[in-house]
Amino acid sequence: MSTDREEREARWALGLLPQVGGVAIRGLLDRFGSARQAWEAPTEALLAVPGVGPATAQAIREFAWKRAVREEQTRVARAGVHVMVWGDPDYPVRLGQIPSAPPVLYVRGTLERASEAAVAIVGARHATAYGEDMARELAAELGQRGLSVVSGLARGIDAAAHRGALAAGAPTLGVLGSGVDRIYPPEHEGLAEEIAGHGAVLSEFALGTAPLRPHFPRRNRIISGLSLGVVVVEASVESGALITAHHALEQGREVFAVPGRAHARYSEGCNRLIKAGATLVSSWEDVLEVLVPQLRRQKVSAPQTRPLPDLSPGEHQVFEVLEDGPLHIDAIIVRTALASGRVASALSGLEMKGLVRQLRGKLFERIRSRER
Amino acid sequence: MSTDREEREARWALGLLPQVGGVAIRGLLDRFGSARQAWEAPTEALLAVPGVGPATAQAIREFAWKRAVREEQTRVARAGVHVMVWGDPDYPVRLGQIPSAPPVLYVRGTLERASEAAVAIVGARHATAYGEDMARELAAELGQRGLSVVSGLARGIDAAAHRGALAAGAPTLGVLGSGVDRIYPPEHEGLAEEIAGHGAVLSEFALGTAPLRPHFPRRNRIISGLSLGVVVVEASVESGALITAHHALEQGREVFAVPGRAHARYSEGCNRLIKAGATLVSSWEDVLEVLVPQLRRQKVSAPQTRPLPDLSPGEHQVFEVLEDGPLHIDAIIVRTALASGRVASALSGLEMKGLVRQLRGKLFERIRSRER
Repeated sequence: MSTDREEREARWALGLLPQVGGVAIRGLLDRFGSARQAWEAPTEALLAVPGVGPATAQAIREFAWKRAVREEQTRVARAGVHVMVWGDPDYPVRLGQIPSAPPVLYVRGTLERASEAAVAIVGARHATAYGEDMARELAAELGQRGLSVVSGLARGIDAAAHRGALAAGAPTLGVLGSGVDRIYPPEHEGLAEEIAGHGAVLSEFALGTAPLRPHFPRRNRIISGLSLGVVVVEASVESGALITAHHALEQGREVFAVPGRAHARYSEGCNRLIKAGATLVSSWEDVLEVLVPQLRRQKVSAPQTRPLPDLSPGEHQVFEVLEDGPLHIDAIIVRTALASGRVASALSGLEMKGLVRQLRGKLFERIRSRER
Repeated sequence: MSTDREEREARWALGLLPQVGGVAIRGLLDRFGSARQAWEAPTEALLAVPGVGPATAQAIREFAWKRAVREEQTRVARAGVHVMVWGDPDYPVRLGQIPSAPPVLYVRGTLERASEAAVAIVGARHATAYGEDMARELAAELGQRGLSVVSGLARGIDAAAHRGALAAGAPTLGVLGSGVDRIYPPEHEGLAEEIAGHGAVLSEFALGTAPLRPHFPRRNRIISGLSLGVVVVEASVESGALITAHHALEQGREVFAVPGRAHARYSEGCNRLIKAGATLVSSWEDVLEVLVPQLRRQKVSAPQTRPLPDLSPGEHQVFEVLEDGPLHIDAIIVRTALASGRVASALSGLEMKGLVRQLRGKLFERIRSRER
């Protein structure tokens, strides 16, 4: 499918119609081969697409999509917001693979590295101190080991997860149920700024979109879609976090839950998830144990970059992940998705070749070429 | 294998030698065909039995077993303690099937009904208020539904479980790591009396045996052996309750655990059990859901008693379990191991036939013949 400028704008425009959800968009693209052709399709053909009813078909027919996109482009440029359209080379790979991938993402900050190996940490807004402590701790520990943390910027568990990642200097992604220029809840405006500085705040909703109730369950599919797995920290049985867990299952993501006391209201949802087969998490190790083999499989199937001369494939991979600065050995294991023994021997090899040196503890960095 | 008086005494005597554990006893019986012949076996033949080393073989050869049993019989008669030898018709069926079934049980109280459908509820001695509340609640709720509660009479979770069962008027069994005349801890002497009045206090150890450390892990196999499943309520990672869970797995019993907060010391063992596949228990329903189908299978394979004339097989079963007094419909479901719908229609049938009547709530009782 070509994504020339006009097709890209046609897709973006699909994201501007609130009636058109992710499923309908995928149906339109499948049926008509391109977004452009979908905009030109007759009502009858539109009605044959799953998820498109008479009201949606009419809205599509009547929408001045070219003008709408042009106006949106102006707003976006003025707000300094980056836009990714499904099919763009920088659109997050994992999210792009879910059936209801959003046609457009509005991004404040940078998604690229953060979406490579991400884990979602979500939960109740009315959390307990126990829940917030666990969210912060898990986010910091996983962040230190090379994972970025995705959450929903809500009060309670979500905010604690973002803060834990920030405290550990790890990238974090906040997915909104409103436009990226309308942070909700308003007291998280400062937190959103910080997140945008160390990762990104993002949304599928156009600028200016209000944080309406139905946006949040829909937003949750993006949280799980960006992530290798979802950790639910505290959740009552009515919590939106359970919707995220449900999306995660549908998308083939891992589901984790932190246990709590049997009659504790905000642990009930988590205990139920565990009963239903979610992995019980009492520390970050429980999460990594499941995700590292996944990352490994993913790397095996990804196209290999050309190895540097004189380096073993393992040494090459380790050298590559050290590009952005020093890393703890655990982080190298996560990023390369190699077994710890292979990482250790690759590091020794790189040290002997004068390409890498060990700093304090188990922190390693590249030796800059000018030093060699 | 015959269990005439002499063979019975020979088995009993095997239980009097502290060196001979359950595995060795089963080995001796398998090898020599009877306990009597084991006592007469030459050292070399004894050494060929798994679990029998030189010291044990010598102890067997030198033991004046006939005199020892006679002395024990006198002590037992004086103490008013009932003795069951493996092979006796009143020996608990389920316990008799485990490979390390104790050759002799000393019983204060009555085991018979209590061991039919029993669940073990065990845990840490140094429990939290949360743990003790859960133990008491689960024991009471399961007790009200026709299960008896097995535990170890220890401080903390065990005592709370016994008390919960007693509060619900349900039979409870306390298995000791000392002689039944030496209650440990001593402050539970009163609780032991109460338990003996509503079930039994029992032990495989001879009268007067002190509560030695190694007795307790060994005692735990009896707790699980008597039960359909073991619920661990609170346990640190070093807790003896995990040994009971381990026995339960080896014996093909169900393992349940009550979750707790991630870093709570006395929940760590439980959370680990859940991670390893134990059923998470947040209320009595989680236990019954697993055990009722088990009871059902067990009843199907048990020999059927002859139905009363004019009664359907379901009506007959329900009528039978009402022999000892009124029961709540849930308890009837557990005891008969019939589906709830079948129990409900059997009760209607019995009411129409004038054999059963409904008291307050969902409590049913037989109409005594003199009233009819």
